[in-house]
Amino acid sequence: MGGVEAPTERTTVKRHADRAVYERETIQAIVDEALYCHLAVSVDGAPRVIPTIHARVGDTLYVHGSNASRTLRALKAGAEACVAITILDGLILARSAFNHSMNYRSVMVFGPLREVTDPQEKWAAQEALVEHVVPGRAADARMPDDKELRQTTILAISLEEASAKVRAGPPIDAERDLDLPVWAGEIPLRLEAGAPVPDPRMAPGVETPPYARRYRRG
Amino acid sequence: MGGVEAPTERTTVKRHADRAVYERETIQAIVDEALYCHLAVSVDGAPRVIPTIHARVGDTLYVHGSNASRTLRALKAGAEACVAITILDGLILARSAFNHSMNYRSVMVFGPLREVTDPQEKWAAQEALVEHVVPGRAADARMPDDKELRQTTILAISLEEASAKVRAGPPIDAERDLDLPVWAGEIPLRLEAGAPVPDPRMAPGVETPPYARRYRRG
Repeated sequence: MGGVEAPTERTTVKRHADRAVYERETIQAIVDEALYCHLAVSVDGAPRVIPTIHARVGDTLYVHGSNASRTLRALKAGAEACVAITILDGLILARSAFNHSMNYRSVMVFGPLREVTDPQEKWAAQEALVEHVVPGRAADARMPDDKELRQTTILAISLEEASAKVRAGPPIDAERDLDLPVWAGEIPLRLEAGAPVPDPRMAPGVETPPYARRYRRG
Repeated sequence: MGGVEAPTERTTVKRHADRAVYERETIQAIVDEALYCHLAVSVDGAPRVIPTIHARVGDTLYVHGSNASRTLRALKAGAEACVAITILDGLILARSAFNHSMNYRSVMVFGPLREVTDPQEKWAAQEALVEHVVPGRAADARMPDDKELRQTTILAISLEEASAKVRAGPPIDAERDLDLPVWAGEIPLRLEAGAPVPDPRMAPGVETPPYARRYRRG
């Protein structure tokens, strides 16, 4: 724990290298907080990117493949993937437009995707996906039967080749701009949950569980 | 206006075709509300995806290229790009884990990227990027000088080949699951702005502008 992983050529952050983070805990914390990822593959040399949900088990990232049919065909042929996970924390308003920025935490993962076929691993990954999105939910929801599990595609990618980028703090303006009469600072942003909306077809007497009433990320 | 664009082969939504939307207004509204996008390209056949900011001017999508150095090298060679724009609206908790879902609005754009080199278009695109993130800000911030504009890379992609997907509404469970004593419904999610945090180096007497005090998306 606490070790700094040696980055590979493609996970070495070149642009804004000062924002690069290779510590495993930082990478894991970003992966765990983000609700979804963007999965990119190449199909006949042309890029495709789709949003999908993910969950982490140890150093393995599982992604849900169901809404990625065309993308999946490429993946099953063993194509490389790139996964981006992005959490936006705030807007950075500098005095100069040039230095406007965002505070964010992001992770990029590279590697081949493998389809999860082992029933035990697939079950565990499915449970992890449910728990990732709503911790506590797997104990309540009806978990998938064999047929549903077969209809679900889950892909795995190792977090071995991953890097993070983090920007935090105030704007950074050039010295010559500091005295400009322009407001500068951060507008913090957060994904906030509203009051749960019960399904109109709910069975009578079912109460809203705490994990829905008090939902929050991070 | 109001016309339904004919989708091309790759913008025809195959999976969950019932969620597909091709109306230009819907696509534009999602593009305009989202704060950032994920831009994917192929580099030597391998996929790369990066988060970056964007802005729309008519049917052109501009993306900021500064933190995409390696990606950009491929783009300048004229590679095809795929841009995903995703807004998460809520978590859908069905009685069965299999039918868990999310409410979301997403757009996917395909096409070649071109680098914006014409100074007038580049200036307008830069202004659009600033205004997209914080409407009203371009009138206050010091806009880029020639040197800063040269240091900025802006790419353009046409929204001609774009499609949207939208999921809204309650969970959809199988009939046999409706009587289960499991809470089902939606946990709505929204990106909320907190109180603006002024830069500690602010010049005295500068007040927080309304666009920062009352910031909201959508």
